[in-house]
Amino acid sequence: MVKLWSKGNKIHEEIEDFTVGNDYLLDKKLLKYDCLASIAHAKMLNMVNILSKEELNILVGGLNEILHNENFEIKKEDEDCHTAIENHLVQKYGEVGKKIHTARSRNDQVLTALRLYELFEMKEIKMLINSLVEALKKKIDDEGYIKIPGYTHMQKAMPSSVGMWLGSFHDAFKDELVSLQALFNKLDQSPLGSAAGFGVPLLKIDKKITAKEMGFSKVQKNPLYCQLSRGKFESEILNALTQLMFVLNKMSTDLLMFSMKEFSFVEIPSEFCTGSSIMPQKKNADFLELIRGYYSVILGEEMKVKSMIGNLMSGYNRDMQLTKEPLMKSIDIVKKCFKVMSLVIDSVKINEENCKKAMTDEIYATEEAYKLVKEGVSFRDAYKHIGKKYLEGD
Amino acid sequence: MVKLWSKGNKIHEEIEDFTVGNDYLLDKKLLKYDCLASIAHAKMLNMVNILSKEELNILVGGLNEILHNENFEIKKEDEDCHTAIENHLVQKYGEVGKKIHTARSRNDQVLTALRLYELFEMKEIKMLINSLVEALKKKIDDEGYIKIPGYTHMQKAMPSSVGMWLGSFHDAFKDELVSLQALFNKLDQSPLGSAAGFGVPLLKIDKKITAKEMGFSKVQKNPLYCQLSRGKFESEILNALTQLMFVLNKMSTDLLMFSMKEFSFVEIPSEFCTGSSIMPQKKNADFLELIRGYYSVILGEEMKVKSMIGNLMSGYNRDMQLTKEPLMKSIDIVKKCFKVMSLVIDSVKINEENCKKAMTDEIYATEEAYKLVKEGVSFRDAYKHIGKKYLEGD
Amino acid sequence: MVKLWSKGNKIHEEIEDFTVGNDYLLDKKLLKYDCLASIAHAKMLNMVNILSKEELNILVGGLNEILHNENFEIKKEDEDCHTAIENHLVQKYGEVGKKIHTARSRNDQVLTALRLYELFEMKEIKMLINSLVEALKKKIDDEGYIKIPGYTHMQKAMPSSVGMWLGSFHDAFKDELVSLQALFNKLDQSPLGSAAGFGVPLLKIDKKITAKEMGFSKVQKNPLYCQLSRGKFESEILNALTQLMFVLNKMSTDLLMFSMKEFSFVEIPSEFCTGSSIMPQKKNADFLELIRGYYSVILGEEMKVKSMIGNLMSGYNRDMQLTKEPLMKSIDIVKKCFKVMSLVIDSVKINEENCKKAMTDEIYATEEAYKLVKEGVSFRDAYKHIGKKYLEGD
Amino acid sequence: MVKLWSKGNKIHEEIEDFTVGNDYLLDKKLLKYDCLASIAHAKMLNMVNILSKEELNILVGGLNEILHNENFEIKKEDEDCHTAIENHLVQKYGEVGKKIHTARSRNDQVLTALRLYELFEMKEIKMLINSLVEALKKKIDDEGYIKIPGYTHMQKAMPSSVGMWLGSFHDAFKDELVSLQALFNKLDQSPLGSAAGFGVPLLKIDKKITAKEMGFSKVQKNPLYCQLSRGKFESEILNALTQLMFVLNKMSTDLLMFSMKEFSFVEIPSEFCTGSSIMPQKKNADFLELIRGYYSVILGEEMKVKSMIGNLMSGYNRDMQLTKEPLMKSIDIVKKCFKVMSLVIDSVKINEENCKKAMTDEIYATEEAYKLVKEGVSFRDAYKHIGKKYLEGD
Repeated sequence: MVKLWSKGNKIHEEIEDFTVGNDYLLDKKLLKYDCLASIAHAKMLNMVNILSKEELNILVGGLNEILHNENFEIKKEDEDCHTAIENHLVQKYGEVGKKIHTARSRNDQVLTALRLYELFEMKEIKMLINSLVEALKKKIDDEGYIKIPGYTHMQKAMPSSVGMWLGSFHDAFKDELVSLQALFNKLDQSPLGSAAGFGVPLLKIDKKITAKEMGFSKVQKNPLYCQLSRGKFESEILNALTQLMFVLNKMSTDLLMFSMKEFSFVEIPSEFCTGSSIMPQKKNADFLELIRGYYSVILGEEMKVKSMIGNLMSGYNRDMQLTKEPLMKSIDIVKKCFKVMSLVIDSVKINEENCKKAMTDEIYATEEAYKLVKEGVSFRDAYKHIGKKYLEGD
Repeated sequence: MVKLWSKGNKIHEEIEDFTVGNDYLLDKKLLKYDCLASIAHAKMLNMVNILSKEELNILVGGLNEILHNENFEIKKEDEDCHTAIENHLVQKYGEVGKKIHTARSRNDQVLTALRLYELFEMKEIKMLINSLVEALKKKIDDEGYIKIPGYTHMQKAMPSSVGMWLGSFHDAFKDELVSLQALFNKLDQSPLGSAAGFGVPLLKIDKKITAKEMGFSKVQKNPLYCQLSRGKFESEILNALTQLMFVLNKMSTDLLMFSMKEFSFVEIPSEFCTGSSIMPQKKNADFLELIRGYYSVILGEEMKVKSMIGNLMSGYNRDMQLTKEPLMKSIDIVKKCFKVMSLVIDSVKINEENCKKAMTDEIYATEEAYKLVKEGVSFRDAYKHIGKKYLEGD
Repeated sequence: MVKLWSKGNKIHEEIEDFTVGNDYLLDKKLLKYDCLASIAHAKMLNMVNILSKEELNILVGGLNEILHNENFEIKKEDEDCHTAIENHLVQKYGEVGKKIHTARSRNDQVLTALRLYELFEMKEIKMLINSLVEALKKKIDDEGYIKIPGYTHMQKAMPSSVGMWLGSFHDAFKDELVSLQALFNKLDQSPLGSAAGFGVPLLKIDKKITAKEMGFSKVQKNPLYCQLSRGKFESEILNALTQLMFVLNKMSTDLLMFSMKEFSFVEIPSEFCTGSSIMPQKKNADFLELIRGYYSVILGEEMKVKSMIGNLMSGYNRDMQLTKEPLMKSIDIVKKCFKVMSLVIDSVKINEENCKKAMTDEIYATEEAYKLVKEGVSFRDAYKHIGKKYLEGD
Repeated sequence: MVKLWSKGNKIHEEIEDFTVGNDYLLDKKLLKYDCLASIAHAKMLNMVNILSKEELNILVGGLNEILHNENFEIKKEDEDCHTAIENHLVQKYGEVGKKIHTARSRNDQVLTALRLYELFEMKEIKMLINSLVEALKKKIDDEGYIKIPGYTHMQKAMPSSVGMWLGSFHDAFKDELVSLQALFNKLDQSPLGSAAGFGVPLLKIDKKITAKEMGFSKVQKNPLYCQLSRGKFESEILNALTQLMFVLNKMSTDLLMFSMKEFSFVEIPSEFCTGSSIMPQKKNADFLELIRGYYSVILGEEMKVKSMIGNLMSGYNRDMQLTKEPLMKSIDIVKKCFKVMSLVIDSVKINEENCKKAMTDEIYATEEAYKLVKEGVSFRDAYKHIGKKYLEGD
């Protein structure tokens, strides 16, 4: 198989293996977007008279073939999806295939495909958040009235309710949706035409055409800024995912705590639980522990990228290849976690009786103090008065 | 000195010392905002008939005193600014001072003061970014035309220019300003009235009044969401700072590289440089190395907060106290780095002659290939043809 | 397929899928070690009269079969290698298979298999370090005499040499080998018999026998400490790997810098380099950039584990499953990086002439000052004298 | 005040301020060690005939003065302790003071002072660990027999005991002491004489003399390895501290959980607890939450250093200055946490009655299964039999 950069010399096999890594596997996720971007690129090349109408038709036809061929394979020897596509076009359509890469570089190609992939996936994630928001809303509507103890410092503090508790997650996700939109707007700029990070010399291309064709709102003009955003934008997405996972982490932590025998405020359905290989009585909500743990997984991926992009000079550095996997893996994990959490919220049972039992006297101490305040006692004196009552028992 | 939570019992001295930590020192930055929030709170308490007009006047007077007293001290025994303020009011104005804490908790007090502090500081940072953007613009206007080599993989790649190079930072900061505005909008919601995270029972307070009085656009309604956002919002700010520092890190890395003798594209003024204690000839741009290093400092602070807030149940946990220092320290560092970088961009000299010399033949290889493309050769064949010429010399 | 913990109830398919994750794939690496540990366990059960000689023979036979069957498959329905093994034994040998799990839990089983895997892999890594140390030694013997500039603050500072430069990595790795041995000693304690983290009740097992049988130096006695070390020991291994990668990161950074046209102290052989898809002249040492980037990958994996294990109560938590992949992935990456770096050091060429040219006057400024010291001038005065000479040219 | 590197030119005030940062404050901790190292250095200079006996006596006298002057001040203008010391010697003793810096650089000076500081502090930490180990041992001897439930997946699993629970921490710390010794051995090599990272030209110094004088076991020979270890060794210390804090984090998490009303296995003495400003009844173990949170603080500091040292070329880079604060701060925090935890373990009360009540039936399910095993039932069948009994109640 021919490398795009091959000039006939040979490369050391072990080094080649190392350099390609699992990039050709990760690129499966990009193939579709690379085809779409290549079609837009070809159309533009035609409009600026670099490709003839006939050449365009052949290339668009070939790219559509790949797009709709679920079995299209990116071989290790191809290195990546970009090479696989060009090689396929050259093998099948000859000379015209050698023209598809005119006025672009793999650098802006991968940037573009990634950007399209990211925009698509972020939309998916927004839909999944919305589903969870709906599930929370329904649960709150149905059982939000049930009182539960509110905890501070892991000690009973004041009266709370299922509505207030689940509502905190509901509101957090609503705010996250707004944040995601802002991130979305940032990502929504086309890097195609930045080539290797220094633009395209001599040939007159039109970046607005490709941007519009692909559905981007605008062009990311400075070619070197396009390069600077590689890794950086990914790190912003990863931060957004960490923020989402943080809320899921807290939900899981609460659910695990509140489903302990010592609390029993909630019951996780049996068919969600797994057992132990040694202890016959165990019924564990492993999936909640995993969601909890995945918070740190995403955080680690974020740190990977943020550490990796530091202390490097401007312009593309191959290190950037290693930002792909953290991004793709994290997106997949976050999507799964949201799906599972929606299922949980739909199915979890609130044990009203146990919640009631847990509403012991000390939870009302602040209210007692406020009663005195209403009678005219200053708050600090009321506080001290009530405080003594509770702590004398110590 | 009296703790707000004191009911007469004693606390172990070493433990007290450990618990307070340096919080009373950090709180100097919050004092102003806590006074402003307390004034708003007092006004609202008056409007809902919990405080009389006279009581309000005394309290507002006392709070204004603190606000304008630059020497107001937060003692270690006070623990924090909230206690220092209440203690001062009680000592100076007696009974009425004991009423200021009605219908609030230190939990929403610190949340509110922090939020006001954050909004103020973010505005400052936006102004500093704007200054740097201006400095970059001016430099680009003046010397942007100068050609320099563009690098990929740390090797000369294609022609670039001072304008494209500095423009990449310019554009990055422009995008950051938009991101900061979105973050700003998220922070712009008042948590006052959420009390300990479960709202205020019995007493009828009006959260909209305090929000408006303090200049917030809206109320953060769910009290437990207010608690959930402690640490979380700080981690979002820290991500924003990391993003800014990333761009400064790249600028520093480039400036350090391009001012090496081996490049000499830029010259850092002597009065910005320090020397070596052993090597008489040295002239080092230490401040650029420090800016570069501060990227990782901010990243570490972000990691701190993000790791700390995980795996904790809902409701306030004292761990949150430890999110203050990372935030405040990072804001101070980022502000300094921007100030210094603006100075640098104003003063750095571009050595046009050296830049010219560096524009060696191989940088034009892509252009040569495109000339062939214009003559009708397919890009891939043109590429191979030109490639051989350059690599035969190997 | 039967779960070890199945009591007949069904589990929600999507949840099951989520819970198993890719554990069944990762466990391929553990299968061998789990068989070895199971053989040791069976032998011990026989010695303490829980298994008969006949039962032992059947089980050891069955386990050896799995051990030597390269195609033994762990199916998704099996969840993990532990279940796959037990299921195989039960299906093939009936009743006796149901006895293999006596007096153990998957918790100590996975701990034991992981520990054996870790010890084996660490030995491998030590061998790979030794190979690189040898390669460095040979290079230093051959070309160590060549003078190159020493840099501080990225500026020429004082005379260095290839020997001093490569020697710094050589010595660092020698120290790392000692650190690894200490880590090795820590890992070298058998957790088998800790069961679910609280030991084995009623049945009299002998943990020393299994430890000895598997080649461990001692037993990790406290069963709950065995659990506490899950994740913790992995984080220590990851720190060790980060330390190793740090040295490789610096080597790569130097090699990339020194092979820039502007330096040309070293030449990376062409067959190690890749090209650009757009720029015909490019010859990039991508593999060095990847090694550089892998430092941050391993660091991210370390942070993942270290963040994940925090804020969790004692005893097994399923989050720990997510520490497997960071460990295994990191070990594989580190091994590859060492192999590649050894190849590089063998093949890299030092360009003596370019190195000589780079030894410009200012590098000798400290020596000049020391000449004055030898003549009786105090160091600080000598320093100032020589310093003026160099800086007047500014 | 005179900079060591001053040659008469001026430096921009804001830049100078930025460059010095808080280094002059941090250096208070190094002053003592820098004096000790300077005395050793002076003695060696005398032995190799660079300083006369009279000069040596003056310098040693002057250095001892500083060493025993608790009020010796490092001014901001001094930049750091190294300069403060040399300036003091020159001002007070004239010419001879200008000779103390012969044959060394601030680079090896700070490395040496840091190394001595680190060795001293690590010894302190080992003593503090030993104290906690003793406290744990005593508690186990006294109340270790008390049975408590063992938890897995945050659910009651099998019988445990106070002895097994606290023993897990005891054993972990014992292993940490061994790890620390290995780290100690690595740090125990003298970098003095490596100068700016390329050794001392012309002058014949003897690094073994200074090493021995300062109590180091050996010389760190390669000068560039000395530089490579700056930041790296600190990151290894930080990892060691993270490992220690992890154990304290788990202890705190358990203590917080077990002192919740819902468990009440342990009681934290009132004089260790603080209250709430709003809720009169609260008694919170804030200090445990802070210890828990400090784990992430140390982890963040570790991340800072490990991210900072990546992607930098060999030889000193000023970024390294920023590794000082993470190290010093972390050491101080860890020491405090150990002191506090020892106090806790001494004072915490185990509530035997509540522990007994918590030992409910299901904890014995594994034992029940093992009873059937003893009667000849295969383990897996026994498990299923007992399992049904417990889960039918669902």
